[in-house]
Amino acid sequence: MPVTITAFERSPDGGRGLARDTRVRWALEEVGQPYEVRLISFKAMKEPAHLAIHPFGQIPTYEEDGLALFETGAIVLHIAERHAGLLPAETNARARAIGWMFAALNTVEPPILEFTTARVFEADKPWSRERLPLAEAPVHVRLRQLSAPASATPIGSTARSARAI
Amino acid sequence: MPVTITAFERSPDGGRGLARDTRVRWALEEVGQPYEVRLISFKAMKEPAHLAIHPFGQIPTYEEDGLALFETGAIVLHIAERHAGLLPAETNARARAIGWMFAALNTVEPPILEFTTARVFEADKPWSRERLPLAEAPVHVRLRQLSAPASATPIGSTARSARAI
Repeated sequence: MPVTITAFERSPDGGRGLARDTRVRWALEEVGQPYEVRLISFKAMKEPAHLAIHPFGQIPTYEEDGLALFETGAIVLHIAERHAGLLPAETNARARAIGWMFAALNTVEPPILEFTTARVFEADKPWSRERLPLAEAPVHVRLRQLSAPASATPIGSTARSARAI
Repeated sequence: MPVTITAFERSPDGGRGLARDTRVRWALEEVGQPYEVRLISFKAMKEPAHLAIHPFGQIPTYEEDGLALFETGAIVLHIAERHAGLLPAETNARARAIGWMFAALNTVEPPILEFTTARVFEADKPWSRERLPLAEAPVHVRLRQLSAPASATPIGSTARSARAI
């Protein structure tokens, strides 16, 4: 089978790239790997056929002959290992680049996701207004850390950031 | 230099493994790789010497000749790639195993961390009691998904889980 990924059938942009499939599409485009896109509904995402390739019922997935993957990090790493150009060739540089892939997914994304949850999905809660700054602060901490040269003065931290991250 | 990792100087167990260094120690022990542990204080974690090897000022880090890594996923993957026994040798099985590494860090851990934040760090907030079940529900969803065979009936979801994950 050709390389096939999944994306939302209905997302604000019609499944063309503002959801997590963006990461996979970007990697595939960069290396010039042709691929097909199977658009699936929110309902189908939670049904057995899709759960068989994505146990958490999400998109994107990646399929090629004999292999089905989920998790954008794993999919992008798989693509990067099979095509030149996405990762450095030198061993240590490669390990460091992979380190930043994990950092993006495990250290940078989670506070952004928590903030998004607070802003979008708890907007109607009585605590929303008071809690939102607490959820936003760690995002700024992470972004400042990303912007700081390693030798710079330690990042100032809020009460929230000091305790939580 | 010998393989050296960092851990908390003061953690509830005295830096012996209940923090994220556990993952790295476990991998090193499994493959029989000797290592040294440098214990560092919370203050030192945010200072330039440590930020130079961990830009987010956390533990653990991993150092060997010519290479410093952070992010437990990257460190464990690095160890697994250099020693037999942690990853399958067959290419597709290996890609799937790496997929589960990303899943653990990017899909399973974040809701647990958000719940922990709600339970521990927002325990004194006026909204704590009402919000805690909202933060807990996604953890149960993930754990049920992990327990479900791929062909099983889709996982029931709460209002929170349906919207957020």
